[in-house]
Amino acid sequence: MTTHRIAVIPGDGIGKEVVPAGVSALQATADRFGLSLEFDEFDFASADYWQKHGTMLPSDWEQTLRQYDAIFFGAVGWPSVVPDHVSLWGSLLQFRRTFDQYVNLRPCRLMPGVTSPLAGREPGDIDFLVVRENTEGEYSSVGGRIFEGTPRETVLQETVMTRVGVDRVLRFAFEQAARRPKKHLTSATKSNGISISMPYWDERVAEMGSKFPDVRLDKFHIDALAAQFVLHPEWFDVVVASNLFGDILSDLGPACTGTLGIAPSANIDPSREAPSLFEPVHGSAPDIAGQGIANPIGQIWCGSMMLDHLGHPEAAAHLLGAIEAVLAHGPAGAPLTPDLHGTGTTAELGHAITECV
Amino acid sequence: MTTHRIAVIPGDGIGKEVVPAGVSALQATADRFGLSLEFDEFDFASADYWQKHGTMLPSDWEQTLRQYDAIFFGAVGWPSVVPDHVSLWGSLLQFRRTFDQYVNLRPCRLMPGVTSPLAGREPGDIDFLVVRENTEGEYSSVGGRIFEGTPRETVLQETVMTRVGVDRVLRFAFEQAARRPKKHLTSATKSNGISISMPYWDERVAEMGSKFPDVRLDKFHIDALAAQFVLHPEWFDVVVASNLFGDILSDLGPACTGTLGIAPSANIDPSREAPSLFEPVHGSAPDIAGQGIANPIGQIWCGSMMLDHLGHPEAAAHLLGAIEAVLAHGPAGAPLTPDLHGTGTTAELGHAITECV
Ligand SMILES: CC(C)[C@H](C(=O)O)[C@@H](O)C(=O)O
Ligand SMILES: CC(C)[C@H](C(=O)O)[C@@H](O)C(=O)O
Repeated sequence: MTTHRIAVIPGDGIGKEVVPAGVSALQATADRFGLSLEFDEFDFASADYWQKHGTMLPSDWEQTLRQYDAIFFGAVGWPSVVPDHVSLWGSLLQFRRTFDQYVNLRPCRLMPGVTSPLAGREPGDIDFLVVRENTEGEYSSVGGRIFEGTPRETVLQETVMTRVGVDRVLRFAFEQAARRPKKHLTSATKSNGISISMPYWDERVAEMGSKFPDVRLDKFHIDALAAQFVLHPEWFDVVVASNLFGDILSDLGPACTGTLGIAPSANIDPSREAPSLFEPVHGSAPDIAGQGIANPIGQIWCGSMMLDHLGHPEAAAHLLGAIEAVLAHGPAGAPLTPDLHGTGTTAELGHAITECV
Repeated sequence: MTTHRIAVIPGDGIGKEVVPAGVSALQATADRFGLSLEFDEFDFASADYWQKHGTMLPSDWEQTLRQYDAIFFGAVGWPSVVPDHVSLWGSLLQFRRTFDQYVNLRPCRLMPGVTSPLAGREPGDIDFLVVRENTEGEYSSVGGRIFEGTPRETVLQETVMTRVGVDRVLRFAFEQAARRPKKHLTSATKSNGISISMPYWDERVAEMGSKFPDVRLDKFHIDALAAQFVLHPEWFDVVVASNLFGDILSDLGPACTGTLGIAPSANIDPSREAPSLFEPVHGSAPDIAGQGIANPIGQIWCGSMMLDHLGHPEAAAHLLGAIEAVLAHGPAGAPLTPDLHGTGTTAELGHAITECV
């Protein structure tokens, strides 16, 4: 039996509250399927670590994490202690780049028992996958200020798209679409306004599309696409987007499915040379941190995506099934957390799911 | 009696269908309030013009348009004839910059008789104003390609923020917020990921905020903000955003209020040195163009914003009241267009509103 070594990084805020629920659910799933998971927990990539050491990460973080098969991540960011752009660029965004996790996969699915804020939408109506470019594009640290502190002050920030970077995420998205029954891929663009990088994106999409004649391809400008997520979420199957557009769409999509609290994401290096990282979409949520009421489902769903990535699709599906089974009881029948209109705690909801595994 | 000279530019697609309805409604309002409006129509800024002349605009467009008090604009963009980045940068985006229309104002209001796609939302629940920076930021034409056509191909696109550009739109937004009963301003940022320009935006927001102690200020990252538009649209009063973020939010906001077909926008030069431009949010809509079913309300509401800008707030309010009166009848009682679940045509709905003026 192979042992999968998992680096656990709870991070900040509700990350520290939901990660234990995720680990319990994973352990229960591993037990049931006879898998061996070994968890090592790390305190770096957190505001606490920053306060103690003045950096977000120890100097040997890369060596350390490369020894693991996957990283099970909570959330990072605690702006009252360390500015977000420092904490994020000093940890999560650094991991994505160093480990070349160039795909960020974010399923948006309306789950049983969850009420969508969109009128009349039922489970099954919304079920799409956002494939986000995860290493370049609008998230670059290239740029700076000139004439600082004067009325002429000017700030430049470079968006960088490379053929390698764009093509590989497009290929991944087309492959995902080709494998799904609807075989439909939507590209997010803004080539009418962002006149250099986005027309390039469109060109590469068209070029890659010619290699996947079976995939029905369309494109929307990001403004119109955001609107259509609300008006016609049933139109979408796989959506591919640049780093920034993918970020926006993969918060908006989950909001349309009722809550950010249950949305998972996988930061994947498809070459498997480096560990992939699994983190819920919700972030550290300073507004509810410390109350024990954060929804652990995003974290547990991340566990399911991680099992899939590690080569255990049945165990992954089983864990997702446990989540769905508990959700299907609704707030009256299960200890759902307040974001799902229940009165359950993180621990209670996590426990209910683990029991179902 | 002052005569206001209005340049009318129908542009492309449904622009050509809704502009006449807008002009009729404006004329009726002018008659009722004893105002004098003089309309001159221009065929440039359209794909037709492009096909005839190979450019979007005549060489003397700036001189020509500077003679007008305002520009009443339909929509531009017809990608099957001219690529969007060419048509838009050759007209609308050019107008915004040349006339330094640095504020793009976009009200998002759930109107009587209109069904929101958000469950349980009633008129009054959603009523906020997006103030979008309109001349710089992510919409810059600075950048280019290197190693073209090779595997090393790299594309750069610069975001440019200036202190002048950021501060003036922030000041405008704070002033708007200070004048409204809720005095609440939300800033859209992404300083956790876009690590140079957006932290600068945040700094300027904080600095300007110190001059408006009465305004309650908060900020959201754009991903979370998009989600909250869907989950809690009632939280917002005035939202200020960079060019790109404002673009996205001002399509998403109107979608949450039921249809893009009724949303207006005003591209304003608050110094009044150059004409301001009034255009509906919907664009040229190739999918429904030519059918006579486009909703003219966005265009007519633009007329109301234009009257306000020209110094006639009562006439503006009256015209908006006519729109609301017709909408309040709902699709059963008024010839609403298909986007509002009616069977009316552009002409019928326009006529119904003009009758109400
Ligand atoms: C057509 C396009 C360039 C434009 C923009 O992005 O500004 C439009 O979406 C708008 O909002 O006026
Ligand atoms: C925290 C932030 C930098 C991050 C991002 O924008 O990528 C987050 O929103 C996400 O989506 O993982």
